[in-house]
Amino acid sequence: MKGVILGIHPGARIVDITHGIPPGNIMAGAFALAAAAPFFPDDTIHVAVVDPGVGGDRDPVAVLTGRGIFVGPDNGVLSRAVESAGIREIRVLSDPRFRLSEVSGTFHGRDVFAPVAGHLARGTSFADIGPILPGLKGIVRLPPIRCSRSHIEGAVIYIDRFGNAITNISGDDLQPTWDHPPRFRVGASLVRTAPFYAEAPPGAPVAVPGSSGYWEIAVHGGSAAERFGLEVNSPVRAERVARAADRE
Amino acid sequence: MKGVILGIHPGARIVDITHGIPPGNIMAGAFALAAAAPFFPDDTIHVAVVDPGVGGDRDPVAVLTGRGIFVGPDNGVLSRAVESAGIREIRVLSDPRFRLSEVSGTFHGRDVFAPVAGHLARGTSFADIGPILPGLKGIVRLPPIRCSRSHIEGAVIYIDRFGNAITNISGDDLQPTWDHPPRFRVGASLVRTAPFYAEAPPGAPVAVPGSSGYWEIAVHGGSAAERFGLEVNSPVRAERVARAADRE
Amino acid sequence: MKGVILGIHPGARIVDITHGIPPGNIMAGAFALAAAAPFFPDDTIHVAVVDPGVGGDRDPVAVLTGRGIFVGPDNGVLSRAVESAGIREIRVLSDPRFRLSEVSGTFHGRDVFAPVAGHLARGTSFADIGPILPGLKGIVRLPPIRCSRSHIEGAVIYIDRFGNAITNISGDDLQPTWDHPPRFRVGASLVRTAPFYAEAPPGAPVAVPGSSGYWEIAVHGGSAAERFGLEVNSPVRAERVARAADRE
Repeated sequence: MKGVILGIHPGARIVDITHGIPPGNIMAGAFALAAAAPFFPDDTIHVAVVDPGVGGDRDPVAVLTGRGIFVGPDNGVLSRAVESAGIREIRVLSDPRFRLSEVSGTFHGRDVFAPVAGHLARGTSFADIGPILPGLKGIVRLPPIRCSRSHIEGAVIYIDRFGNAITNISGDDLQPTWDHPPRFRVGASLVRTAPFYAEAPPGAPVAVPGSSGYWEIAVHGGSAAERFGLEVNSPVRAERVARAADRE
Repeated sequence: MKGVILGIHPGARIVDITHGIPPGNIMAGAFALAAAAPFFPDDTIHVAVVDPGVGGDRDPVAVLTGRGIFVGPDNGVLSRAVESAGIREIRVLSDPRFRLSEVSGTFHGRDVFAPVAGHLARGTSFADIGPILPGLKGIVRLPPIRCSRSHIEGAVIYIDRFGNAITNISGDDLQPTWDHPPRFRVGASLVRTAPFYAEAPPGAPVAVPGSSGYWEIAVHGGSAAERFGLEVNSPVRAERVARAADRE
Repeated sequence: MKGVILGIHPGARIVDITHGIPPGNIMAGAFALAAAAPFFPDDTIHVAVVDPGVGGDRDPVAVLTGRGIFVGPDNGVLSRAVESAGIREIRVLSDPRFRLSEVSGTFHGRDVFAPVAGHLARGTSFADIGPILPGLKGIVRLPPIRCSRSHIEGAVIYIDRFGNAITNISGDDLQPTWDHPPRFRVGASLVRTAPFYAEAPPGAPVAVPGSSGYWEIAVHGGSAAERFGLEVNSPVRAERVARAADRE
């Protein structure tokens, strides 16, 4: 893909975000893209592919947003990032001028997305890149959380390479006051919350407000996924602990 | 290696192809280089090393081809790419002016190949880089396939990180007509062919014409290597299925 | 981190050294940084983070040296590289002008180190980046070796991805003369020394003077860590073999 982009636009500056998305895990790809994209300049062209997964009935698309252009399959991997950046226009990548001449059945990243990214970087106008698509079909949605007065029931949506378990409970869902913080229930264990990993003693579990905007279950110096047997979709529960005053 | 290249030529644009070649697997390195190189611009300088493997009796070489220059050890890792790109001239990297002053026993990539690539990128002429070598000694050759009227016997040459098993049976060896496609036999199992991974139901095995030009055994959403216990050199067989008309 | 750097200084040339440091292993990070940094140009800005490990009481610092600037936490990961490059001045990264406006509890790399690196690359003077710190607090020190007339007792400090075990016995500690080389004792096994991996027969263990300046225990075409059950801190012993003349 990098060779194709540089062949079209030798001045392109190419940056890898991650090659560590688990095979086929569109939710994890969507999560990683949405977490990284806001920190790139607004004229960035983002390209995302989750392999394997090519050759289905998903359109290859380019999405113009308020913060850059996103290129990839319409299978949901782009959806969280483009919704958060503000969708302006979506176009289908069907124009043979912006594809490699021989399109392979197994590598749309190289044969379709990379050439489009190269041409956009080189100056091709977004309006010329292909016909308009009314809206995205592939949308990755977070599993819903269930809130009550006393707790929030959520789930793990991503395990990172350190074994931290990122949940679908956002900082907005559960705003802590550090003088009276909430706690998490993971299986039969209670996990206290803290603003930083390192506030827990080495080896101890802790829930922290992650850099992605969602609460993460972590183990200081260890793997929370291993300790608690967590996987994507494992349930977690955040409990609001009543203030002493509230209890009376 | 990147530091050395940038120290010699600060304007160099360095692109990683892969750091995922299994240790010592020259065939896998040769395969990855030959698959990626044709998609880079023709003035690219390709550098390839497979570690560990340094310090044997293989000459360090640079190969001028019809599509760029290739720098690396003459142990076969360059051979598939340079043969396909068209060899014009081969030179031995024995000139101390283009080496780091202290050459380490364990890191020729940094001490020999990177400086040569940096100097070539900065403008040193290929003719100045070292004395001519008559021909490559290290040649990686695909294991041969055996063809009969009814089938082709081949082998796995590479397992990618998704568990897809790339075979030595090329698209030219086995041209499918999709109205009457061939099938593969892997161990005791029959695997049907399809133009795309995603045409198989989730969890089902399928053989697809891979983006590298060779047939691949895959499992939609899973690992073919795990499912079938495949490794490099595992035998696979492609069977031409007779047309209904042929059977009569 | 790359997005933040490019947002501040679009002309930045960003090079990855490694993403393969084991989680939390500051010694391994310090070792990798010190091994790579000397090969980069002198005006390089090095950024190092070992995750997880954020949010403790370690100051974020920038260190001006005789060979470039190093940015990261004062937890020891910078110490070997900056000591070897020659420390000139250390500054604390407390200035909010050079941080992202909302500093996350879990990603100082993105929110503190990347912005500082971007501003330094763009031309902010080192003297403006923050107040002076008298000295580093976090210092990673190699475990000591014990030398006698006949042998040196050391330990494994790093296992690389090939399973080579890098020791804390340096080339200076144990200068071989190849006509009369020393040998290593690893558990109950004797391992001979050689200038190159490939001088050992395939499958045989060998100790080589590594490219990092330290002796490495290796297995030609295999993993020394696996063969000998080596881990970080496993003891190894180098034995000076007496010359025939000395024995008399």
